[in-house]
Amino acid sequence: MTVGTVHGVGLGPGDPDLMSLRAHRLLTGARHVAFFRKAGRDGQARKIINGLLRPDVVEFAMEYPVTTEIPLTDPRYNEILSGFYADCAAHLRGLAEGGEDVVVLSEGDPFFYGSFMHVYTRLRDHVPVQVVPAITGMSAAWTATGAPITWGDDILTVLMGTLNAQELTERMKTTDALVVMKIGRNIDKVRDALKAAGKYDDAWLVEYASMPGQTVQRLSEAEDRVTPYFSIIVVHGQGRRP
Amino acid sequence: MTVGTVHGVGLGPGDPDLMSLRAHRLLTGARHVAFFRKAGRDGQARKIINGLLRPDVVEFAMEYPVTTEIPLTDPRYNEILSGFYADCAAHLRGLAEGGEDVVVLSEGDPFFYGSFMHVYTRLRDHVPVQVVPAITGMSAAWTATGAPITWGDDILTVLMGTLNAQELTERMKTTDALVVMKIGRNIDKVRDALKAAGKYDDAWLVEYASMPGQTVQRLSEAEDRVTPYFSIIVVHGQGRRP
Repeated sequence: MTVGTVHGVGLGPGDPDLMSLRAHRLLTGARHVAFFRKAGRDGQARKIINGLLRPDVVEFAMEYPVTTEIPLTDPRYNEILSGFYADCAAHLRGLAEGGEDVVVLSEGDPFFYGSFMHVYTRLRDHVPVQVVPAITGMSAAWTATGAPITWGDDILTVLMGTLNAQELTERMKTTDALVVMKIGRNIDKVRDALKAAGKYDDAWLVEYASMPGQTVQRLSEAEDRVTPYFSIIVVHGQGRRP
Repeated sequence: MTVGTVHGVGLGPGDPDLMSLRAHRLLTGARHVAFFRKAGRDGQARKIINGLLRPDVVEFAMEYPVTTEIPLTDPRYNEILSGFYADCAAHLRGLAEGGEDVVVLSEGDPFFYGSFMHVYTRLRDHVPVQVVPAITGMSAAWTATGAPITWGDDILTVLMGTLNAQELTERMKTTDALVVMKIGRNIDKVRDALKAAGKYDDAWLVEYASMPGQTVQRLSEAEDRVTPYFSIIVVHGQGRRP
């Protein structure tokens, strides 16, 4: 029997039309499709591909354990997640060793802050794993603003909103072009850091980039709104341009 | 008569299979296709889509003026390039005003260090312009290394090899994950900066990511080789992973 392949397939930023030809072909032909989701939710990756799967597809929903009560610094947090990813990897490995190919969905690009990486590192020494890169959410976000993100020799820095205030401010101050992701509950800290770095008035907030409900506005004009998880902040570089 | 639309279409990193569904549809249906190239060359973007165009397509090759003799700091350099982009934009605008849609090819993502940006800014106030984001060359490069680029709260910095040695070193030292592009003749400077920053042994060199002839190797093992333009250096982040 031939061992199957686990395909980590990047779906891109959310619009199914921005999926790659390869991703589309793998998805529409897949007998086994696995995806991460929060318990009780449909899962964003799964939603993107609604209507594209084979009628006889076998789906495997990998539901994140609930960790909201446990601080990131508590060792239990890591233990619970680590056990979860090990279980997911074991299931995927079982399918591949049974001769089945499996497509694992990944929002954005699988190797860029993605969940797929955690099963990838647990699988790659045991079964064949192929990764299909994809359009990142940040590409969709800067495209939505209608202005290029980087010119000439511009330095681009990508920051997570989960970093501490001082680190955020320092990095924002010293970069040309800026992307901030994982904003969610960190929005006030990110806003203060942008102000301290003198970049607040140049910051754009893009929600649901390339998805239904996409919004694009200056962050300063979104002042009081709650920011959902699918938000990206963009500050454009101003480099050399003939 | 209806005014046509200029589509800035990102082709992705080079493998036509990594083009988005939207890019593919626009390309295969286009009556007018424009692309940048060096004089006397086929043009990388044009090569990617070989065999995909309509038999009756009208192609418009935008050939960069030769500026190799003129230093970047000479005002003539900017003047020549600026005139070139203005001429290209005028031609594209003429087509759109004549009712034709035009697809302008762009390697990688059009708004990420792309040439399309220079015609985009000259067109957007006059005719409808739509931009299709794409998979970046750097995504293809880190995917080719077989290891994720960023984990957890990792900071990603994207640097051009054209920056000065001190700036390169300083930025390399203080980032978690790193991408260096526009390497070409800057390879020795980039190498020295990586050494000074203590990241040389962790640097990977990817040539022709996702293209025929792709190579992936540790930069330290590529020591004496000449690096072509289509090279990207990657240093992976080592952030939190359960």
